[in-house]
Formats: sequence, C-alpha cells, structure tokens
Amino acid sequence: MNEDRIWTAALIVIGDEILSGRTQDKNISQVALWLNLQGIRLAEVRVVPDVEAAIVAAVNELRARNDYLFTTGGIGPTHDDITVDAIAAALGRPVIVHPKAKAVLEGYYATRGGLTEARLRMARVPEGAELIENRMSGAPGIRIGNVIIMAGVPHIAGLMLEALSGKLEGGRPLISRTLGCWVAESEVADMLGATEAAHPGCQIGSYPFFRDGTVGANFVIRSTDEARLDACADDLAARLREAGHDVFAGGI
Amino acid sequence: MNEDRIWTAALIVIGDEILSGRTQDKNISQVALWLNLQGIRLAEVRVVPDVEAAIVAAVNELRARNDYLFTTGGIGPTHDDITVDAIAAALGRPVIVHPKAKAVLEGYYATRGGLTEARLRMARVPEGAELIENRMSGAPGIRIGNVIIMAGVPHIAGLMLEALSGKLEGGRPLISRTLGCWVAESEVADMLGATEAAHPGCQIGSYPFFRDGTVGANFVIRSTDEARLDACADDLAARLREAGHDVFAGGI
Repeated sequence: MNEDRIWTAALIVIGDEILSGRTQDKNISQVALWLNLQGIRLAEVRVVPDVEAAIVAAVNELRARNDYLFTTGGIGPTHDDITVDAIAAALGRPVIVHPKAKAVLEGYYATRGGLTEARLRMARVPEGAELIENRMSGAPGIRIGNVIIMAGVPHIAGLMLEALSGKLEGGRPLISRTLGCWVAESEVADMLGATEAAHPGCQIGSYPFFRDGTVGANFVIRSTDEARLDACADDLAARLREAGHDVFAGGI
Repeated sequence: MNEDRIWTAALIVIGDEILSGRTQDKNISQVALWLNLQGIRLAEVRVVPDVEAAIVAAVNELRARNDYLFTTGGIGPTHDDITVDAIAAALGRPVIVHPKAKAVLEGYYATRGGLTEARLRMARVPEGAELIENRMSGAPGIRIGNVIIMAGVPHIAGLMLEALSGKLEGGRPLISRTLGCWVAESEVADMLGATEAAHPGCQIGSYPFFRDGTVGANFVIRSTDEARLDACADDLAARLREAGHDVFAGGI
C-alpha cells in the first residue's frame, strides 16, 4: 500500500431547508472533522435541492472521482424525502424494502403507533445496500458501493458516523497545529508564503479575526506527516517571534 | 417582464478551512436569506478547496446556468487567497489593480503601517470589474458580469450584501409560513403529500425535531404567491387540527 496515497470523499447536502436559509448546515464540518480522523480528506461539497435530477447528477459526478461519497438529508418518511429513490436511479438499481430495516422499524414503532406505510418508507434502500445502525430513531443509514447515505438531523448523522468509525479504508490522518497572533495577516503575508514554500508537504492557512477592537489571525499548519508539521510550525513561530510578535500555541 | 420567471443564484464557498472542518460555514444561510428578500432563489452551493482548477471549473459551470454567481472567501492578502486570480482565469481576463480600491486601501492603512505589497493584493480585480463597498476593513468586494466576489468572514460578507441590497434584478420574493406540531412527521406524512398536491405553486417541507424527550415537526410552506401560500397553510392547519393535533403558527 502506498502510504502517501490521499483518500478523498465528497459530501452532498440534500435539502431545500439549507438552500432557503431556514436551516444552518452543521453536517459539513461534522463530516469533515470525522473524515480527518479516518485519514480521508473532504475534497468537495455540494448543496442540492430536493429535486431528483439535481441529486442524480451530483451523485454520479462525485462518486466517480472520489473514494467515498456521503450524503445527508432526505431519508425520512415524508413526500419531500426522495434521496433513496434518487440515488437508486443514479446507480441504476431498483429500490427494495430491506428486511432487517423493516424489522428494526417494526420494533421501534411497536409502542409508537405501529409501522405505517409512510414509516415503512424508511426501510427502502437501493438493492444490494447494507444498513448503518442508528440507535436513536430506528431509521438506519445506508451504504451501497462507495456511497454512504445519512440522515440530515445532525445528531443522527453523528450517530451514523460513529457507527462507521474505523470501518472505511483511509490513509494517514491530516493533522494540524494552530498558532495565534495579534497581528494583521496582511503584515505577515510574505512570511506565511515563504514559510509554506520552505516546507513541502505542509499547507498554511491564515484566518483573520476582529476581537475587542483589535485584529488578529490564527495560522493553521496542516500536513499528513507529523515531523514535517512540527518543523513547519516551529519555523513559523520562530519567524513570527523574530518579527516581534507574541505567538499563542493552539490559537487565540 | 414575466412575473413568474424564477431568478436563480449559485454560491461557491472557497476555502480549505471549511473542508477541513476547522470553520463552520455561516455564509450559506446568510446569502440564502438575503437572496430570498431580493426575489432570487439560491439554487445550488459548492464548497471547493483553495485550488485554482477547482475554482475555475465551478465558476464556469455555475455562472453559465444561473442568473448570478456569488463566491465567498479567498480575497485577503495572504498566499492562500487565490480567488481573484482564479475567477479572472475563468473569465479569460487579466488581473489589474483597481485605482479606486487602491485609494481606499491607502486611506485605510495610512494609520495602520502603510499599504504594503501584500495589502495591495486586495486591490487586484479582474479587468472590467466594479467594486462593492466594505466600510469595515477597506478591502472591497468585486462584481464582474454576473459574478459577485465577497469576503469569507461572515460579518464582512454581510456588509457587502447590505451594499448590494435592492441593486440586483430579481423576481417575486419567496415567502413562507411555518406551522409547528407535537407530532411525529411519519404520522402525518400522507397528509403533507396530499396537501402539497392540492396546492400547485406551493412546497411543503417537513423538519422533525426531538425536544424534552418528545418528537415534533415544523412544516414550512413556501411560495412566491401570497394568496396560494395562505390557502395552502390554512388547509394544512385545518387538516392537522381535524386529526387531533394542536397547531402552532410560526412553528415550535
């Protein structure tokens, strides 16, 4: 195995509620942080409406050029939940009722009014899919090929990620160190560029902020190689101090 | 003018900090809510890394099929700020220093250490661009053709949107009404679908939640036509009450 291979994932956030501004997405950062730990890099994200053609186009483009494709949203019991049908269409597979998912839902709804036709929708999967456990609401996530279909409600998506932890093949995790500084990033822009150029395999991101009337910035150094990361971060800290700035490890 | 024409916009969120999970995006919902008021619908969003080829591809695809394309992020003074160059490349235009932007930055930095080479980067625009005012930090947003380039820091992007308010041609604003109910959405799924089908021009979204150990849902009815919106919302409220549920106007 090539240790330097970079594993990538894409994420499709499905839902009119994100595009209308009603709901602030929380899944992008949640999925990104979880992927870092699996040694997989989130390479691109799309937010698409509850429209089958839009979902199909995004699914087929992104699953082809990434190791994994995650989706969030649209797997509930209501008429606007069309993710399973759209992904089945994208994969050219029929939709079936998964026997185990049906059994889980029967158990869950036994004391909650029974498994109605609408609730049974949540047991539908593209043929050939595996389930991803969800101890919260009974309705499972779905894994088929390199496509992983999750709930839109962030804490349920989080439980599904938890159930997948350590189960996807990845590379070396992306690690980072953050240095904070009460300085305008524009004052040290050349220094940041020169430091990054001197440390192959590392990226330096600069994230300015305004607080208590003062400007500052956090500099995030990222790498998959711990020794390189430390060398780059130490070099940047030394250069910042040499220029007369206090440096706060871990960021401000 | 066709009153029923739907005006659309796309948004590209540019930045490794979103894809790494370090930063929780706040611009998608901010841009979406602002667009609703302008009578423009946010049709799709992409999050792309600080990589020129990725930005160019997304810009050219999305500006061609939407009335407007917004971008956030990557217009600061540091080496990882490549948005202007990437968009100029996408448009096939050279990058120039905008005289007015340079003058604004000179004024802003007069008492802040002067306009260095790095800071002058923030005056660079694709040839032919207009500026979008930013009274907070001096660095302007940029408008060229149907592409609108904004800062990534949410409150600065917000100021740029404010400066653009009422200046973009749009259609009728998308309006919405929300009805809240302490009911499992799966219990009323058929009712929601039937109500939506009975009211052309309206969409009903169902957004479940768990609170204090109880399930509930907010049903959001959206339309560009106020009379149709009211008829649909009133009909849904009546059906929910008939089924024995209390309905909370405005949502729970």
